[in-house]
Amino acid sequence: MVRNLRKVAIIGYGHSKFGKRTDVNFFELGWESIKEAINTAGISQEDIDFVALSNFGLWSSEPSPAASILEYAGLTPKEVIRVETACSSGSAAVKTAYMAVASGSADIALAIGIEKMHESGTSDVVELLGRIGSYFWEFENFGPTFVGYYALYANQYMHKYGAKEEDLAKIAVKNHYYGFYNPKAQFRKKITIEDVMSSPYIAWPLKLYDCSPITDGSAALILASEEVARKLTDSPVWIKAIEGATATANLAKRDNYISIPSAVIAARKAYKKAGIDPEKPYKHIDVAEVHDCFTIAEIMAYEDLGFAKRGEGFKLAREEQTYIGGLIPVNLSGGLKSKGHPIAATGVSMMVELTKQLLQKVESARQAPINNGTALAHNVGGTGHYVFVTILSLSK
Amino acid sequence: MVRNLRKVAIIGYGHSKFGKRTDVNFFELGWESIKEAINTAGISQEDIDFVALSNFGLWSSEPSPAASILEYAGLTPKEVIRVETACSSGSAAVKTAYMAVASGSADIALAIGIEKMHESGTSDVVELLGRIGSYFWEFENFGPTFVGYYALYANQYMHKYGAKEEDLAKIAVKNHYYGFYNPKAQFRKKITIEDVMSSPYIAWPLKLYDCSPITDGSAALILASEEVARKLTDSPVWIKAIEGATATANLAKRDNYISIPSAVIAARKAYKKAGIDPEKPYKHIDVAEVHDCFTIAEIMAYEDLGFAKRGEGFKLAREEQTYIGGLIPVNLSGGLKSKGHPIAATGVSMMVELTKQLLQKVESARQAPINNGTALAHNVGGTGHYVFVTILSLSK
Repeated sequence: MVRNLRKVAIIGYGHSKFGKRTDVNFFELGWESIKEAINTAGISQEDIDFVALSNFGLWSSEPSPAASILEYAGLTPKEVIRVETACSSGSAAVKTAYMAVASGSADIALAIGIEKMHESGTSDVVELLGRIGSYFWEFENFGPTFVGYYALYANQYMHKYGAKEEDLAKIAVKNHYYGFYNPKAQFRKKITIEDVMSSPYIAWPLKLYDCSPITDGSAALILASEEVARKLTDSPVWIKAIEGATATANLAKRDNYISIPSAVIAARKAYKKAGIDPEKPYKHIDVAEVHDCFTIAEIMAYEDLGFAKRGEGFKLAREEQTYIGGLIPVNLSGGLKSKGHPIAATGVSMMVELTKQLLQKVESARQAPINNGTALAHNVGGTGHYVFVTILSLSK
Repeated sequence: MVRNLRKVAIIGYGHSKFGKRTDVNFFELGWESIKEAINTAGISQEDIDFVALSNFGLWSSEPSPAASILEYAGLTPKEVIRVETACSSGSAAVKTAYMAVASGSADIALAIGIEKMHESGTSDVVELLGRIGSYFWEFENFGPTFVGYYALYANQYMHKYGAKEEDLAKIAVKNHYYGFYNPKAQFRKKITIEDVMSSPYIAWPLKLYDCSPITDGSAALILASEEVARKLTDSPVWIKAIEGATATANLAKRDNYISIPSAVIAARKAYKKAGIDPEKPYKHIDVAEVHDCFTIAEIMAYEDLGFAKRGEGFKLAREEQTYIGGLIPVNLSGGLKSKGHPIAATGVSMMVELTKQLLQKVESARQAPINNGTALAHNVGGTGHYVFVTILSLSK
């Protein structure tokens, strides 16, 4: 009986350069993507009814930045809600803006994700990120960093299925390959398996090149109702489904470390809503962005999303099936690994990338063939505390 | 053209005891209101499709508490979005849950606001709250506490309109009077004008008894679509409008200090949507909860909401027109002043109170006469960075 009554389209998209953005302040960084989103939509600030904003901001002294971001962007006195679901906060912002339009509360809504992680030093950021695990049980007692949490997954996965460190490395090589062609990416450098294998261990078996970086960046989307979208654009991209799920934050309570259970649930919900066969989703989906905060996370995502059978995700990597021309191209933006991972901007960034992929507007070396007109974003918060899976489509 | 396609009803409500809650941990405090909300709605956790959660949490080391709150409350793997708009975060949670239901994304949604401010010491909390002003320009340069910001308002208001400190004190006396009868209130003590006038100055002209306290507490609402509400309850309370607006965070950029401009805008939007005459809203509204973080804030709210003409709000206080039997009864819960102000729980708490007022379920000494079946909540974030105005009604 749950059903959406108004269709929602993406009609504008903006993306800042990702990287160490000491050249701009926080508000300028936000404006970089908002301005581009407004321009691609062909609207002005006054047309926007509602803003959903994601900024995790642990590294900032400003506890409530939304009003000031709006003011800098010329959006005062518009209504805003700031949202947070850790590293999936960007998807939560898009979901909130989506609900604003689908509910009729807004005809045009802005979703903006922004993070300026270099406001603190690296060691502070690494500690603050570690707290996003199960704070009381894990961080307070054992003090792992985030790579430590994902090393647990990598350990059990490799032990159970026989994946090798070289298989993980293949993910990093692929994502750096595509990031090289993305002018907005933080690292534009092709790397080799040897580069990854010789990089220093951070938490065995994960090495430096298995990890996404600390990144500053912002990304923005303009969403509109069908009626408004039809007036403003000839090329709307429809949000067919944007579904979230949660799991215990406490890894000691998980059944295993080979899968993120909330990802499986969110994918199932999204596939059902979008009419995608959960057994063979790659038959429908032209291109996907998945949450490769660490290389093992991308391999688990292949399985959690049904791109590969359980225990066979690493074979997709080994056989290069997630390059263009393979079973399903994944992270043609460079992914979190190479494009960068500004925590609360990442989910929005994924959807900016997929919108441009569907509209065939990315650089030719990393443009997926668009056959079905369907794309998927998979965005994980914490160690799977939160997951959102989103399906975008050229057809309503 | 903006319109809501699905009606949304409140079908359950819960409220923890407010105060210094060192008797419970954070998760137990949340469960106190969630349990009551689920029980009053006559549902179980599995019936909930979506959760909107507000927790400002500056005083906590846990950066992303939503997943753990859900787990403790038996709500994993439900979708959650945590929201923040400073002291109006609770209204943002209700708005987000409202949009989830109105959009068809959920048939039943939970809004939960929670704050455990005593996790830090008083001086830390006072400093952290001060940062919610315009951080860079005001806090960093001048270091005011929050009472300092509102003292600016009180100064200009008294200077311009001839209000006296005793007029401000009348607000505190009224709200303590009603809080005395509210078993969930933090302070259950009637006070006199002399008590207020002899309390120590915090920031002239505001004294200790002009200020709301540091509070732990939670509040929760269950929202449902019309179809579901009709099945589950004979007494739904409808959300007729829940509208937000923003203003510059930087007080130096405001036109004056006698009004909160975002409150005027949010009220105008809410009145329009709910069909309330903005010139005489008290003709429609039986009872209101307004954001009396400081006594001057309640007086400005009277004017911003149209309960009094500009410059005459203090006369409503002087003439006791906002007691039961007056022009419009305000803060019969005790308000932030006496009930307490657990930052991100406050907006949800206001709506729990108004739901019970409309259903005539509060203690008789503080029950408003319900004639039109309409109630208003006014919830301010920061120094007016964010404002939400909500209209609840017994009729759809």
